[in-house]
Amino acid sequence: MNTNESLVLNKIDDISFQFLETPTITNPNDVIVQVKKTGICGSDIHFYAHGGFGYFRLNKPMVLGHESSGVVVEVGNEVKSLKVGDKVAIEPGVPSRFSDAYKSGHYNLCPHMVFAATPNLDINGPSAPGTLCKYFKSPEDFLVKLPDHLSLELGALVEPLSVGVHACKIGSVKFGDIVVVFGAGPVGLLAASTAKKFGATKVMVVDVVESKLEMALRLNMATHVFNSKNGTLDEMIKELGQRPNVVLECSGAEVCIQSGVHVLAPGGRFIQVGNTTGPASFPITEFATKELTLFGSFRYGFDDYKTGVALLDANYKDGEDKAGINYLGLITHRFKFKDAIEAYDLVRAGKSVKCIIDGPE
Amino acid sequence: MNTNESLVLNKIDDISFQFLETPTITNPNDVIVQVKKTGICGSDIHFYAHGGFGYFRLNKPMVLGHESSGVVVEVGNEVKSLKVGDKVAIEPGVPSRFSDAYKSGHYNLCPHMVFAATPNLDINGPSAPGTLCKYFKSPEDFLVKLPDHLSLELGALVEPLSVGVHACKIGSVKFGDIVVVFGAGPVGLLAASTAKKFGATKVMVVDVVESKLEMALRLNMATHVFNSKNGTLDEMIKELGQRPNVVLECSGAEVCIQSGVHVLAPGGRFIQVGNTTGPASFPITEFATKELTLFGSFRYGFDDYKTGVALLDANYKDGEDKAGINYLGLITHRFKFKDAIEAYDLVRAGKSVKCIIDGPE
Amino acid sequence: MNTNESLVLNKIDDISFQFLETPTITNPNDVIVQVKKTGICGSDIHFYAHGGFGYFRLNKPMVLGHESSGVVVEVGNEVKSLKVGDKVAIEPGVPSRFSDAYKSGHYNLCPHMVFAATPNLDINGPSAPGTLCKYFKSPEDFLVKLPDHLSLELGALVEPLSVGVHACKIGSVKFGDIVVVFGAGPVGLLAASTAKKFGATKVMVVDVVESKLEMALRLNMATHVFNSKNGTLDEMIKELGQRPNVVLECSGAEVCIQSGVHVLAPGGRFIQVGNTTGPASFPITEFATKELTLFGSFRYGFDDYKTGVALLDANYKDGEDKAGINYLGLITHRFKFKDAIEAYDLVRAGKSVKCIIDGPE
Amino acid sequence: MNTNESLVLNKIDDISFQFLETPTITNPNDVIVQVKKTGICGSDIHFYAHGGFGYFRLNKPMVLGHESSGVVVEVGNEVKSLKVGDKVAIEPGVPSRFSDAYKSGHYNLCPHMVFAATPNLDINGPSAPGTLCKYFKSPEDFLVKLPDHLSLELGALVEPLSVGVHACKIGSVKFGDIVVVFGAGPVGLLAASTAKKFGATKVMVVDVVESKLEMALRLNMATHVFNSKNGTLDEMIKELGQRPNVVLECSGAEVCIQSGVHVLAPGGRFIQVGNTTGPASFPITEFATKELTLFGSFRYGFDDYKTGVALLDANYKDGEDKAGINYLGLITHRFKFKDAIEAYDLVRAGKSVKCIIDGPE
Repeated sequence: MNTNESLVLNKIDDISFQFLETPTITNPNDVIVQVKKTGICGSDIHFYAHGGFGYFRLNKPMVLGHESSGVVVEVGNEVKSLKVGDKVAIEPGVPSRFSDAYKSGHYNLCPHMVFAATPNLDINGPSAPGTLCKYFKSPEDFLVKLPDHLSLELGALVEPLSVGVHACKIGSVKFGDIVVVFGAGPVGLLAASTAKKFGATKVMVVDVVESKLEMALRLNMATHVFNSKNGTLDEMIKELGQRPNVVLECSGAEVCIQSGVHVLAPGGRFIQVGNTTGPASFPITEFATKELTLFGSFRYGFDDYKTGVALLDANYKDGEDKAGINYLGLITHRFKFKDAIEAYDLVRAGKSVKCIIDGPE
Repeated sequence: MNTNESLVLNKIDDISFQFLETPTITNPNDVIVQVKKTGICGSDIHFYAHGGFGYFRLNKPMVLGHESSGVVVEVGNEVKSLKVGDKVAIEPGVPSRFSDAYKSGHYNLCPHMVFAATPNLDINGPSAPGTLCKYFKSPEDFLVKLPDHLSLELGALVEPLSVGVHACKIGSVKFGDIVVVFGAGPVGLLAASTAKKFGATKVMVVDVVESKLEMALRLNMATHVFNSKNGTLDEMIKELGQRPNVVLECSGAEVCIQSGVHVLAPGGRFIQVGNTTGPASFPITEFATKELTLFGSFRYGFDDYKTGVALLDANYKDGEDKAGINYLGLITHRFKFKDAIEAYDLVRAGKSVKCIIDGPE
Repeated sequence: MNTNESLVLNKIDDISFQFLETPTITNPNDVIVQVKKTGICGSDIHFYAHGGFGYFRLNKPMVLGHESSGVVVEVGNEVKSLKVGDKVAIEPGVPSRFSDAYKSGHYNLCPHMVFAATPNLDINGPSAPGTLCKYFKSPEDFLVKLPDHLSLELGALVEPLSVGVHACKIGSVKFGDIVVVFGAGPVGLLAASTAKKFGATKVMVVDVVESKLEMALRLNMATHVFNSKNGTLDEMIKELGQRPNVVLECSGAEVCIQSGVHVLAPGGRFIQVGNTTGPASFPITEFATKELTLFGSFRYGFDDYKTGVALLDANYKDGEDKAGINYLGLITHRFKFKDAIEAYDLVRAGKSVKCIIDGPE
Repeated sequence: MNTNESLVLNKIDDISFQFLETPTITNPNDVIVQVKKTGICGSDIHFYAHGGFGYFRLNKPMVLGHESSGVVVEVGNEVKSLKVGDKVAIEPGVPSRFSDAYKSGHYNLCPHMVFAATPNLDINGPSAPGTLCKYFKSPEDFLVKLPDHLSLELGALVEPLSVGVHACKIGSVKFGDIVVVFGAGPVGLLAASTAKKFGATKVMVVDVVESKLEMALRLNMATHVFNSKNGTLDEMIKELGQRPNVVLECSGAEVCIQSGVHVLAPGGRFIQVGNTTGPASFPITEFATKELTLFGSFRYGFDDYKTGVALLDANYKDGEDKAGINYLGLITHRFKFKDAIEAYDLVRAGKSVKCIIDGPE
C-alpha cells in the first residue's frame, strides 16, 4: 500500500513529497518504526546540490535521510529486545550477515552494506530507502532502545554522535590525551565531546568561524578553542600548553590535515574523519620521522550506536539541567515534515548547525 | 692522540682522510671497537651530494659512516656482555637515558639522540662522529655480539636490516599477511626478506628496475615481483592473486605512496619507511573510507638490532650454502679504506646495491 | 530418507551404527558434504567414557565426530565459493549470525553456537549431529576448500590445527618468541608447530612420555624437547638457554600450569589451551609480580580454519618430501568406518596419537 | 653529617628513631627533598609484623616509608624541571637506566630496581632508605611536581593512586566498561575511582566490611557497592544489572579471585593487583572457555605518577568543594613524626584506612 509519505530526491536540485509503499515484516526479526525526528547531514546536501560525492553518485530517485529516531509500531515474531511503543535510534546501514567484514568485527567495511539514502556502490545491488518517511523497516539489532529520559531529538543525534564515537575508539582516545579537533561542524563537535567523555584532559576545537567556536565552549564540548584564521600553529600549541598527542580531523580541509601532522607530538595518533574532495598534499616524511599513526575512520560499527546512547544516558541521567554537555544545543533549527524542502534549502545555504525535521504525522 | 684514521666529509663534494683523536674509555660501560666493515647508505650520499636532507643539514665537517661492524679492542670496568676480540654490530645512535622517549620504549624518537654521521638537530647539541674510522666508542648496550658463524660483512648489514625489522614490527607483519613492498633498494629488499621471515605468505617487491627485481627473486627475498613500469595496479593485484593487506613503502616516491593506498584491501596496514623530498599527494578520503592505518617508521629502536642479528643467525645456522635467504648477495661492491672516496663516487653514481668499505688497517 | 549411515553414542560405553535422515539443502548457502576422513578427539572419549566434561553433558544420543574433511556433493543456489567435487575441511561449529559475539569478531564465544557432536549448553537449544556420518550439511562459509595437493587426511587435521592457530593468534606468537609448550598430545604438537611457523625462534615441547617427545622432534614440530619427569625447571631453562617469553599450556595438568608461571620471563604471555578437570592451584602473586598475561583460548574463530589450511598449503607446496613439518606423521592409526568402534576403544586405551576413521562408503 | 632524623625498622616488632646521614647531591640531576607527608602502606606492616612477604624479606635495618610528598630544598646543576620550594610527589623506586626492562618501557620490571623501604632482591645489591626521614634524595625525573592547588597530603596519596592507575592502564579500562573491584582498602578504592575517571560506566566495589563500602559511596569512588558476605554472585550481577567486563582484584583473597572469574562476561579482562600469601585455587578451565584475559599488575611504571597527579589536578581544579571525588576523605588518621610508632601500631591493628605521618620538623 502506498501510504508511506516520503521525501524523495529525484535528481540534483529536485526534491518532492511522494507516497511510497509501506514496508511490511518479512523476517521474524524485522521491526517497523514510525520515524519521528530526522537530522539533515552534509552528505544529504552533497546529493541534493551535486548529485553525490566520492564513489557515491545518485543514479536514481531515492528517499532522503539517515539520522533518525522513531517509535516502534510493529515487531516480528522473534523480536525480543523491543516492543511496540519503544523509542529507538535507527542505525541506517545493514551489512551482510555472511561477509568476512561482518564476521571479523568490522561491518562498516562490508562490501554488501545497504545504507539508507545512499546509492549502492554495486549498481546492481539493492539500495535502501532513506528514513525521511513515515514507516521504516529495520532488523531488531540495528535499532537501539532509548531510555525513557532521552528525547527523540537526542535519538536523532545518535547517528552523527556514533561517527565521533567510532573515531575516538579507533584512535583509542583515553584519559590523559591532549586532543585537537579540526572542524567545528556537528561531527567535529560530537567527536570533541566524545573525546572529553572518554577522558581526554584537554580538547581543543579549531575552526575559522568564531560563532562555531563559541558554541563549542558554550555547549561544554571543548576545553579550548582556537581560530586558525587568527593564529599560527605555534600559537595553537602555546594556547594548548603543549603539543597534542591526538588529532581528530573532522574538516576534510587540506590545510587542517597538514596542520594536524605539524602540531602532533612524536608518537601521536591522527584520526581522519572528514572527507576531502580529492587527494591532499600530505607531509609524509615528517609523519614518518615522528612515527605518527594515521587511522582512517569510516562511519561506525559494532557497539558504536550503543556507546552513543550510553554517552547520552550518562550525560542526562540527572536531568537536562545538570547535564555536563549540552548536546541538544547543537540543534539550531526545527521543521515540520511538510516544510522539509525548506529545511534542506536552509542547510544548503550553510545557515544551521543541526537541523531536525519531524516525521510525517 | 690523533691516531684515529677517519673519512671526513668536509662539505658538499669534499671528502678527505684525516687522523683524528682516538676515543678513550670514560664511562665504565664504554667499549672501544675497531671498525672492520662499513656499508654506504643513501643518506651519506645526500650529505655528500646535497649537504643534507629533511631537517638534517651538514653544518660542520663530520666523519662519515653509520652501518658498521667491528671487533672489540677495549672494554670498561663494568662491561659484562662483551670481551676483547668479540665481533659486534654497532648501533650508531645513542639516546638520552633520561628522556621520556627512551623511558617509554621508543628511544628512536628521543629528541636528544646522538647519531653517528648525522648533524644534531639541536645545533648546540653534541654530534657523534661516523663509524668510518679505525676506533669507535660505544656504550656496551648499543653493540650486539655477532655469533661466531656470522661474518663481519653480515654485521655491517644489520643496520639497514634493522630498519626493515622496525618497520615490520611497527606494522605487526605476521603469518598470513599478503605484503607489497615498494622500492627494491637495500632497505626495501631487507624489509621484504624480514616480512617473509615474520611469516608473510606472499611478499611482492615492486620497482621499475628489472635487475633489482631479478635480484629480489634470486636472493630469495620476495615471493613475487612486479615491474610497475609495465603494468597497472589491477595487473599487480591479479599477479598477487588478491589485494595485499600490508604495504611497506620503501621508495619515497609519490606514485608508490598513492599506489599503496589504492591496492590495499579494506582494513589494511601501510608502513611508511622511505623518505620523500617534500609532501606527497595522498588519497586520504579513500584511505579513510577503507579504514586503512598508516604507520610512520623511523630508524629502529628497542631490540630491533638484536632481532636483526637473530634473523641472520637463524638464516645461516646450517651454513651459508643452506641459508634460506642470501643476504650477502646484496653486497655488490667492496673497497679498501684507502679507496673509500672512490666507493662513495660509485654509490653516488647509482652503480651499486650495497657497497662495503673495509676499516683502516 | 534414512540413508545416512552414522556412528551414534547412545550413552556412556554404548556406541552403535545407525541409519539416520540424510540432510537436504534448506538455505541457499547450504552445502552437503560426503564425509571422508574423521579424527578422534579427546572430547569424544570424554563423552564415551564419562558422559561429558565441564559444562558439556551427554543428555541424549548423538552422532560422534567433529574433526572431518570430505567432498562436496551438493550446493545451494547461492553458493559461489564451492562446487561439487571440491575437497573441504569442515568447521564443525556454527554460531548465530545475530549474536554480539559473532558481530564483534569472536564467534567462538557465541552463546547460541551449535557445535557438532556437542550437547547444546541450552538444553532446549538445537544440537548438531557429529560428522561421523555419510552426509553432513554445513553453510558454505564454514567449509574451507582444500587445495588439490592437500589430502583429505590433512583436511581432517585442520580442526585440531586450528585450535593451535587460535592459541598462537590470541597470544600473538611471532618472530623471536621463545616458546614452551606443555603437553605433547596432538593439540600440543600442532600448537608447537604453529608457533614455529609463526616465527618463534625456539619451541620446546615438554611432556613426561619420551616417545611423544621423540615424535615432536622427528616430525620437526619442535626445536627442543624436555622430559619434565627427569629434570627441574632450572634444567629446563638451562636446556632452552633462557627463560621463555611465551607458554602454550596444552596439557591441562596443574603441575604444568604452575611450571608455566614459574619459568616465564617477566612480562611473558601464557596461553591456556588445555582443559583441567577442576580448579588449579595457581601462583597468582608470582604471576602479578612478573606482570604476566594469561590468555584463555577456546576452540577457534574467524579465519583460523583458513590459516590452518594456509599453513598446510605452504608446508606441502613443494611436495610431501620437501615439507618442513611432517603433519601426516601425527596419524598413527587408520580405520574403516565399519571398524569405528574398535577405533574408539583404541583411543580410549591411550594407544594412539591421532586416529583417523574413513567415512562410510 | 648525621642530621637526617629517620624512622628505622630494626627487626620484627622493633621500630626506633635514628639520626642517619643526610644525603648530598652527587649527580647533576639529583634533587634533595624535605619530606612532609608519608602514608603508611600495608607492605610496611608486613615488614613490621612478619619481617616481609613474598620474595621480600627484611635482612637488615631499614628506614620505613615510601608514600611521600615533600618540598624541594636543593637541586643538582642540570635539574631543569624543578626548583627549590616546589612541592613534589616522590616516586620511590628507581630502576637501572640500562636495563632492557627500562629501555623497553616497563621499568617496574627492572631486576635492578632500587625501591625505598624494600630489601633488594639481590642480597648484594644496593638498598634504598625509606622516605620516613627529613631529607630524601631522588633523581629529578622520579619526582612529579604538584600544582599549587594540590596539597602535600594529596601528594602522599599519589603512590597508592599510581598503583590503581597502572592497573587501569594495563587492563585498558575505558568508557563503557562495567567494572567490579574486589577489596575496599585504599588501593581498591583508588583503583575504583581511577576506573571511574577513565570512563567506566559502572564501578562496583565489593567487600565484606560495610563501613568501607559506605566510604566508597560517600567519597564518590564507586557507583555501586556490594557486601559479598550478604549475597551471592547472582545477586551481585543482578545488582549491577549485567555481568562486568572488567575485574580489578585488589584484595588478594582467594574467594575474590574465584568470584572474579565467575562473574566476568565472556571475553572479559581480569587485572590482579592484590597480593596473596600463597597460590590460589583458580578456575582455569572456566577462564579459558570464556576466553578471559588475566593481567598481572605490579606497582607502577612510565607516566603513571604523572597520570596520578593529573587525576588529582583535574578533580580539584575548581576547588575542594566542587571536586567530583573526595580523595582526601581516605585519610582517616594523621600523626606527627614523633608519634610515628603509634601510627604504625594503629595501622597494624587495622583501625585506619589511610594514616599519614608528618615529616620531621
